[in-house]
Amino acid sequence: MKKKGIKNRVTPWEVKGSVNYDKLVKEFGVERINEDLLNRIKKHTKELHFMLRRNIFFAHRDLHWLLDEYEKGNKFFLYTGCGPSGPIHLGHIGTWMFTKWLQETFDVELWFQFTDDEKFLFKKQSLEEIQQWMHENMLDVIALGFNPKKTHFIINTKHAHLLYPIAIRIAKKITFSMVKASFGLREDSNIGQLFYTSMQAAPAVLPSVLKNKNIPCLIPHAIDQDPHFRLTRDILPKLGYYKPASIQNMFLPPLTGVSGKMSSSENNGIFTTDTKEEVKNKINKYAFSGGQPTLEEHKLKGGDPEIDVSFQYLRMLLEEEDEKLNKIYENYKSGKLSTGELKKYTIEKINVFLEKHQKEREKAKKKIDDFVYKG
Amino acid sequence: MKKKGIKNRVTPWEVKGSVNYDKLVKEFGVERINEDLLNRIKKHTKELHFMLRRNIFFAHRDLHWLLDEYEKGNKFFLYTGCGPSGPIHLGHIGTWMFTKWLQETFDVELWFQFTDDEKFLFKKQSLEEIQQWMHENMLDVIALGFNPKKTHFIINTKHAHLLYPIAIRIAKKITFSMVKASFGLREDSNIGQLFYTSMQAAPAVLPSVLKNKNIPCLIPHAIDQDPHFRLTRDILPKLGYYKPASIQNMFLPPLTGVSGKMSSSENNGIFTTDTKEEVKNKINKYAFSGGQPTLEEHKLKGGDPEIDVSFQYLRMLLEEEDEKLNKIYENYKSGKLSTGELKKYTIEKINVFLEKHQKEREKAKKKIDDFVYKG
Repeated sequence: MKKKGIKNRVTPWEVKGSVNYDKLVKEFGVERINEDLLNRIKKHTKELHFMLRRNIFFAHRDLHWLLDEYEKGNKFFLYTGCGPSGPIHLGHIGTWMFTKWLQETFDVELWFQFTDDEKFLFKKQSLEEIQQWMHENMLDVIALGFNPKKTHFIINTKHAHLLYPIAIRIAKKITFSMVKASFGLREDSNIGQLFYTSMQAAPAVLPSVLKNKNIPCLIPHAIDQDPHFRLTRDILPKLGYYKPASIQNMFLPPLTGVSGKMSSSENNGIFTTDTKEEVKNKINKYAFSGGQPTLEEHKLKGGDPEIDVSFQYLRMLLEEEDEKLNKIYENYKSGKLSTGELKKYTIEKINVFLEKHQKEREKAKKKIDDFVYKG
Repeated sequence: MKKKGIKNRVTPWEVKGSVNYDKLVKEFGVERINEDLLNRIKKHTKELHFMLRRNIFFAHRDLHWLLDEYEKGNKFFLYTGCGPSGPIHLGHIGTWMFTKWLQETFDVELWFQFTDDEKFLFKKQSLEEIQQWMHENMLDVIALGFNPKKTHFIINTKHAHLLYPIAIRIAKKITFSMVKASFGLREDSNIGQLFYTSMQAAPAVLPSVLKNKNIPCLIPHAIDQDPHFRLTRDILPKLGYYKPASIQNMFLPPLTGVSGKMSSSENNGIFTTDTKEEVKNKINKYAFSGGQPTLEEHKLKGGDPEIDVSFQYLRMLLEEEDEKLNKIYENYKSGKLSTGELKKYTIEKINVFLEKHQKEREKAKKKIDDFVYKG
């Protein structure tokens, strides 16, 4: 999958270089979320989630259509997922926090797919190792507080009797040439990789198949997964189903700076199982700073919050209150707030979040059975 | 899959032209079954099945190894299957009759795969239509008298939760280039077709996976399926499993003459649901004759049993007694037996077989549940 010499690259398996979201919007053909759409969402949700207010969820496909249906009483379901191959980091959490908000606000079902097959097929890890990570990752999803009565975990291997019969209907309409064009797959790609996208497409219609009626679907996901769902959207109407709507978020940056994305395999982020000390150490030592080399210079010239990773973590994930965030922004920019102080605040916010999360994660160990779909 | 201008072609999805078995043996790399091997088999079975005596099952892979293991007390299991897309014809029956003999003689388990996914992915038929045929085809398999306690039907869609986790381990070791070379698949092949061979490979290790120990496998199959199992044999040792052994039969010829194979989609054979009248009509009207144009000429010059389709049905499927068959051969060759008489005898043999088969087929309607694997 890797091509040398390409600096900016966004595929479901690789995000490299600084991400130009305007270019992605154009390339992928998604639509920017604008004021009109935000106002329309607000009619239903009263408040707007800060990730909408701040354009972290910045693009969509067919959200207007989805709301048309919703307003007619045709409720949608949510579909998102996780490719388990390592520990969960803060970059995963944002998409799921927002998904939980959607579930609560619209009172809808969530189908949550664990793509153990994908990670096995695309990585040099055994299925056993992947499935151990899957177990760990489930704890993180449950810890976020999803409603077990309305949330169904689907595991690609375990639930293949549900997914595979749908996947082959989708696969019959996708050729090698198409997955070559969409994902950069090649003649030396393994045949599981070639087939895989049809397994990721299947949950977008699984509830419709199970209930034997056409149900609208909304997929919240990080923008790198869009090639899968773009293809899915082309195929499903040919099988008599709605095109799934989708809503895309930007990547939480890695500690090293505001390009690429936080990634377990590159070990460049904060894991949900990190201790308070580890968090402190990672932020202090590695979080790229937009501040000046010396405190004096910083006081004089001010810092750049746009490229400051700590500030971005606050903006994208941890500081829900706009007023507080704006104050931090201004103070950092003016030089009133030092890098040390910004990092200290960020460390506190992360650790407050993780303390609660880790407690819930412990409790989740007894809850997995309530979430794994029975059927 | 179809290439124009190629007259002789044997792939899992197409058998065209007169089949040169010597060439196939060389091309596919299977071994001829020789006297030595027959004698070794006979030590265990006492009698040799007429399909072995007559070289209808003519080739194998690793049968000596399989018997080594058997003699050490390491019992094998049988794996064969059916791609359901139309009615069962006499060409299918031979492989399964022989498989039943193996099951009884060696007292072993049989895993019988119904590849509904394959037929859906390679044919212009809906999954619903395929699955209706599958139901019909199951009746034919059961009617042959397999032991329900030792026979497990595996349906690729229904049992995907068992097969898919194995299939992806196999798929990870197979590239597009390999399925292009092995099956002639192309850039415009659908991704389900590309993945499919790994689903056909999976039952060769399913019992080993379920019982968590390495169990030898013997696959009786028509020679056209060999490309699947050749690939399977390359991969399984890399996953820590035995290479499956296999035993290959020749094709029962279509009514039209001794080239190609009997095929449901080409409607060139005798179906198990044909009435006595239909059988009579098909043989009399269409069965290619090795006789002379006139009865007088026939009496003078004699017929050619080698190219006579009726005679081949007797030899390959219906006339178990060598003495009777030899007499028919001699009399037909000398001209003593006319084409009309040969056809009459063949019609009788088919109709005796079908009368019993159709009765058992009716009873089978209540037995399907006993055969479909539960797990």
